Amino acid sequence: MERLNVGILIFPGVEILDFAGPYEVFSRTRMEPGTESRRSEDSAPFRVFTVSPEPGPLETTGALTVTADYSFADWAEAPAGPAPAMDLLLVPGGFGTRALLHDHRTMEWVRARAGTVRWTTSVCTGALILAQAGLLRGRRATTHWASLDLLEELDPTVSVERDARVVHEGIVTSAGVAAGMDMAFELVAQICGEGVAEETARYIEYRWPPAPASGS
Amino acid sequence: MERLNVGILIFPGVEILDFAGPYEVFSRTRMEPGTESRRSEDSAPFRVFTVSPEPGPLETTGALTVTADYSFADWAEAPAGPAPAMDLLLVPGGFGTRALLHDHRTMEWVRARAGTVRWTTSVCTGALILAQAGLLRGRRATTHWASLDLLEELDPTVSVERDARVVHEGIVTSAGVAAGMDMAFELVAQICGEGVAEETARYIEYRWPPAPASGS
Repeated sequence: MERLNVGILIFPGVEILDFAGPYEVFSRTRMEPGTESRRSEDSAPFRVFTVSPEPGPLETTGALTVTADYSFADWAEAPAGPAPAMDLLLVPGGFGTRALLHDHRTMEWVRARAGTVRWTTSVCTGALILAQAGLLRGRRATTHWASLDLLEELDPTVSVERDARVVHEGIVTSAGVAAGMDMAFELVAQICGEGVAEETARYIEYRWPPAPASGS
Repeated sequence: MERLNVGILIFPGVEILDFAGPYEVFSRTRMEPGTESRRSEDSAPFRVFTVSPEPGPLETTGALTVTADYSFADWAEAPAGPAPAMDLLLVPGGFGTRALLHDHRTMEWVRARAGTVRWTTSVCTGALILAQAGLLRGRRATTHWASLDLLEELDPTVSVERDARVVHEGIVTSAGVAAGMDMAFELVAQICGEGVAEETARYIEYRWPPAPASGS
């Protein structure tokens, strides 16, 4: 089985659950069901790592201290450098996205990765970064409910979906914070099969797929 | 408004979402609704920090690198030392709990904190640590579904609740991983009111309170 590399961007002021939710989902997925399989990487379909603009520890919203596995500089030396190829790029949100919107290096790095990965994805206001990088042009997309208007302003060619939890249109965007876990499960289902996604949801006791709305 | 100190234990092999889920919930709760209030701590009812047995970075399940704000040694010097008083202790789970069950210092630290906080809580197999420390004697409690039998073995006086997502009996225990977020919201509701909990759930787009099971 080919193991897929999931690269998660983190930065000062990243919303904890935006990245930690999908990190949990991808890193705990196993093709082999049960608890024992979670003790090793043997049947893990994903290898998850984090990347930050600068090396060294950073603080999320709420001041949790996290250190990324790689920094942008590791890609400057690619392919000779230490940076692994990515199959899936995940851009989370948080108040820290606002500073990145005007950071040339971040835009360059995100665009370059998006050009090589199979899946470009965002959680919450991570969609603002993708929009600013020009990656959502003419696509349907979503973001945190409080940033729907800003997404539309950043790129008026985007068809902003105001009620969707996850939008798949080449690029996969999700609504706020916890919606990133639903997005991760939808991707696991698409890549590994529904059964693997449902077994992983049961393992981490997350309600997925969500119960249908009452009356439906 | 009195701000409550939430201390979250983390350790090598802690399950990411076990601690990051409640960390998100407590740290993003605001008495003042809306998005602007989340930009400052002005109306934050909780101050959240992490504590690890040893100082320095550690790896969670899935190898995310996190550094706690404090280590056990900070309490050795209390009250003169840097360790803040805690109002709420949260003990998460993960495969790393197994090593801690036989770690005398961890048991001592957990017992000492539980003796002074208003709320002692666990997520997932964090309940095994509380049981081993003797804190669940004669109480109803729960844990991850795969560890229900082990919880019963560790302390046969515990009434193990096999179908509950959160059990409140002086000490608050929750089922596996994602159930810790439901526990956090129940505590926010209890401490700050239902309205504050529901508004915070809406802010982070987490489905809480959960939809009633179909047919009910």
